[in-house]
Amino acid sequence: MGKTSVMVPAEEVDLSAIKYESPAVQAPHLTGSMFKLFVRVVEAPVVGSLIISHLKKQNKIVEMLRNTVIPEAPMFKPEFPPQEPEPGVATLDEDGKPEERVEAALKCLPHYDLAGRWNGSQDPPFQYWKIRDYAYAYRCGLVTPSIVAERIIPIIEEFNNKKPPAPLLISFDAEEVRKQAAASTQRFEEGIPLSILDGIFMAIKDDIDCLPHPSKSGSTWMHEVHSVKKDAVPVSRLRSCGVIFLGKANMHEFGMGTTGNNPNYGTTRNPHAPERYTGGSSSGPAAIVASGICSAALGTDGGGSVRIPSSLCGVVGLKTTYGRTDMEGSLCDSGTVEVIGPIASTVEDVMLVYAAILGSSLANRISLKPSAPCLPILPSNDSLNALGSLRIGKYTAWFNDVNSTDISNKCEDILDLLCRTHGCEVVEIVIPELHEMRNAHLVSIGSEMLCSVNPFCEDGKAVRMTYDTRTSMALFRSFTASDYVAAQCLRRRIMYHHMEIFKKVDVIVTPTTGMTAPKIPPSALQSGETDMQVTGYLMRFILAANLLGLPAISVPVGYDKEGLPIGLQLIGRPWAEASLLRVASAIEELCEKSKKKPASFYDVLKT
Amino acid sequence: MGKTSVMVPAEEVDLSAIKYESPAVQAPHLTGSMFKLFVRVVEAPVVGSLIISHLKKQNKIVEMLRNTVIPEAPMFKPEFPPQEPEPGVATLDEDGKPEERVEAALKCLPHYDLAGRWNGSQDPPFQYWKIRDYAYAYRCGLVTPSIVAERIIPIIEEFNNKKPPAPLLISFDAEEVRKQAAASTQRFEEGIPLSILDGIFMAIKDDIDCLPHPSKSGSTWMHEVHSVKKDAVPVSRLRSCGVIFLGKANMHEFGMGTTGNNPNYGTTRNPHAPERYTGGSSSGPAAIVASGICSAALGTDGGGSVRIPSSLCGVVGLKTTYGRTDMEGSLCDSGTVEVIGPIASTVEDVMLVYAAILGSSLANRISLKPSAPCLPILPSNDSLNALGSLRIGKYTAWFNDVNSTDISNKCEDILDLLCRTHGCEVVEIVIPELHEMRNAHLVSIGSEMLCSVNPFCEDGKAVRMTYDTRTSMALFRSFTASDYVAAQCLRRRIMYHHMEIFKKVDVIVTPTTGMTAPKIPPSALQSGETDMQVTGYLMRFILAANLLGLPAISVPVGYDKEGLPIGLQLIGRPWAEASLLRVASAIEELCEKSKKKPASFYDVLKT
Repeated sequence: MGKTSVMVPAEEVDLSAIKYESPAVQAPHLTGSMFKLFVRVVEAPVVGSLIISHLKKQNKIVEMLRNTVIPEAPMFKPEFPPQEPEPGVATLDEDGKPEERVEAALKCLPHYDLAGRWNGSQDPPFQYWKIRDYAYAYRCGLVTPSIVAERIIPIIEEFNNKKPPAPLLISFDAEEVRKQAAASTQRFEEGIPLSILDGIFMAIKDDIDCLPHPSKSGSTWMHEVHSVKKDAVPVSRLRSCGVIFLGKANMHEFGMGTTGNNPNYGTTRNPHAPERYTGGSSSGPAAIVASGICSAALGTDGGGSVRIPSSLCGVVGLKTTYGRTDMEGSLCDSGTVEVIGPIASTVEDVMLVYAAILGSSLANRISLKPSAPCLPILPSNDSLNALGSLRIGKYTAWFNDVNSTDISNKCEDILDLLCRTHGCEVVEIVIPELHEMRNAHLVSIGSEMLCSVNPFCEDGKAVRMTYDTRTSMALFRSFTASDYVAAQCLRRRIMYHHMEIFKKVDVIVTPTTGMTAPKIPPSALQSGETDMQVTGYLMRFILAANLLGLPAISVPVGYDKEGLPIGLQLIGRPWAEASLLRVASAIEELCEKSKKKPASFYDVLKT
Repeated sequence: MGKTSVMVPAEEVDLSAIKYESPAVQAPHLTGSMFKLFVRVVEAPVVGSLIISHLKKQNKIVEMLRNTVIPEAPMFKPEFPPQEPEPGVATLDEDGKPEERVEAALKCLPHYDLAGRWNGSQDPPFQYWKIRDYAYAYRCGLVTPSIVAERIIPIIEEFNNKKPPAPLLISFDAEEVRKQAAASTQRFEEGIPLSILDGIFMAIKDDIDCLPHPSKSGSTWMHEVHSVKKDAVPVSRLRSCGVIFLGKANMHEFGMGTTGNNPNYGTTRNPHAPERYTGGSSSGPAAIVASGICSAALGTDGGGSVRIPSSLCGVVGLKTTYGRTDMEGSLCDSGTVEVIGPIASTVEDVMLVYAAILGSSLANRISLKPSAPCLPILPSNDSLNALGSLRIGKYTAWFNDVNSTDISNKCEDILDLLCRTHGCEVVEIVIPELHEMRNAHLVSIGSEMLCSVNPFCEDGKAVRMTYDTRTSMALFRSFTASDYVAAQCLRRRIMYHHMEIFKKVDVIVTPTTGMTAPKIPPSALQSGETDMQVTGYLMRFILAANLLGLPAISVPVGYDKEGLPIGLQLIGRPWAEASLLRVASAIEELCEKSKKKPASFYDVLKT
């Protein structure tokens, strides 16, 4: 029996009294046989409940959700107050054809710098190419999609045959890729490419439907109960633009982890350091882009799954506003925190893919009134970037809560440079109730995930899940229906706090992750691992965008002492993807000179 | 471990294959010491869980919510497709002053029949008076609010001093009533009454805030943790119209029951048969209106709590569309199934009170786009009622699933008469997944209730709840967060089915309850009771309006062989209160001749 506490209404919270508290996670780091034993104990009827109860008590979950009077009504899905239109943007037609949106996006980009791009050797000719590089080369006849396909296929196959396995793609059909490439090649021969994306190779995360592949969500059995009848909506939009799909990219099973560990198919390695994780759950999408094999990929982000691996792999990842992209045909199509978003090696490519996939036909289901989608108009000359009036919110105590000052210093340096170059202003902010946010997110994503996987677990598939997933499931099963409702009351409070902050600033800036790519313990390859310390660092800055449905982008800003990528995160107002892309583009330009290509995939293969 | 079943998408359900199944409830009827023992066992750690599991299994709750793939995304709150405007109605201004809306409503009523109303003796002059009777009498100087108050006060006090206690009001302050009456009397003397509702006496259910009374929700302790700082929004609107509040009306503790049993303060008796229940949870509001003490009352309806007691007491009760009335200041202000609605002895009075209270300032919170509120224009001449094109949906197998043919026959007769008189048409319909609807509603209302009461339970107040409430709480605690999400997926299906039906019909008709007022077992007065059979009959036709947020009205249509009132329920399209009120008014007129006043409250007092 606990003591009742009473929260004051959100609007009465005294921000001057808020002290930042670093989340203290007390849980053992387990891998190998100890981890297997732990999972069996946690799943046991009585002892398991006791352990879970203890873990929840440590995180104050019970105290927060059952013993506390929360004065706010539940907010079951992000509900956004009406937003001002963004300045200096081009509006896209959400209901129009994706091909036309991509052409409109093209007009927002700076002039394509022919000299800068084609001044050296290009061998292999496609590695690390941007979308416009391919487009140029295809249109000049320098190369055809079929030629590129024949270069990519053996590399993918080599990755997939590595021992121990570390696949980028877990469903791959060379003949299918050849067929798509041939069709694209023919379109170019006939002079009728479908769009700037025609012949562009992309990988799709395994939890998004993409014909003719099965959707396993990184598991061994999801395809047995879910048959793919058509492309997910964003995939079908890319297909109508002429995109060539390489296959289904590896991921943390069911997206329920942030490292990308996957004992079912093997764990994808970080192109910058093959003994390290890519981050997850979109491990394959981030790694294949970071390896320079393809320009872009689609991931899903319910708790950082696009941004975390993008940050750890040194690429750009966009988490769109909730309701901006259509979730039909993805594993989490009925959740309240997850969206589909693009991963690419440049902001420009993220913009082009975003323009193609955006728009949700499920307006009725989402119950949100989206603002018109926009893109920033990016001038070639960075001094014209119009960031002069931008106010960047920074909660310094939080910003600095990382496991190496390399991260905070690098992010801080870039911010300084941005302000000096563009004249924008950093505003110190305070974000209250970060711990409440974590718990509200955990209960929401866990319950929604459990609801969609439950029917199959009951049918005996639970033991065919990874130990990692089973640990999470044991925790999720312990949440009560009233915990879920209470978490939604917290969501309303936290939305209030953020909307107040967005009255004072245009974006919130954080490091994307509190650590760079963690090492893979060799024992974790077979049986997975649980390391709440690592999870805590990886998810530290992630959750506002998921719980509140806000757009956020991770953009690479440099490297730590060990040469591992560091990502900076920008969190925007609802629907304000254009603002994020504009700032991200300016940051990218400032970092351009220091950008390193990772050891090429050939090197990765050699390790 | 169960077997996975898979539901077909809602739009592929084959209605021709649906067979009506009466809900088979297998649970013991318990009162007295057996009930107390049962509650202690159910609350015990291991055995309790086993019993609850068994009960849930019998109701297929686990099978339905954990082992079934439900293809629909969750619908956390009613989401209504856009609605056609209703024909032949007067539009009210939701944002305008309540006094002005009441005046507009007055214009919708048929001419006030002076001769018909004032042709006999009126002693006591106010008993069973309609609002317009009071208004006329006040304006002619036949009586003043203060004179009426002096007549009512001793009656209330007599009720409250009965042994065993059976109060209509559980918070009552004679001086406070006198003060309000004096102020109203003075307004009439000065010729400046605030509206047609000035000087009208009303009772407010105890879960709705009304100054200066505490809000206990029928419990012994809620006021210790919830202090009333202002009127609930609908109460404050009535106050600005000049309404005189008699006090807080009795109810089933926390609204968690359908009989009105209340061991804390005594159980309100049915004015038609004092050895019987009023129905609940708005027991006091329905009984005080049925006793003729005041014209109208406010109740709340989350699972029939306005309609059930209205039906059992022979008065009119309106459950408004979700989002039509403001819930701020009521116990369930953050739920997804409950609304505030008026109870009155005539449709006309329901209309006037509805006009005053409607409008939700919490549009942002509700996230619904309401259609403009309307009222039907009621002609004095019933042949002009414009019901000619009305299509009334009736699911006969369900309609007839009542515990006495008295009920179905009487409802059927009235329907026949309505069609013969007004030329409307009865259309046979099939409503699939009624059992799914019950479970989805149970999980929703239970979890939302538990969430708001939980913080106090943890603080030791759980044992100060009635055994009745404790039984429900034990069940509610067993629902998991993923059960809650799955229930919301069912809500989307059931909304689909109903919206399909509303393409073919304008209203759905059922008996309001499957039985007339049940007897109060003497042993239940002290310790409450659990009788799932009775609950099943009382809630049989109730839940679509709550789970889907649809408007519904209960209108008295006659009596069973024992002289107990029978109610007919009309369920309308979203926002279509006006259509319901029009049909209800026509039905009321057809039943007028057979209407009996209950044995007066003096008789009730004598028993």
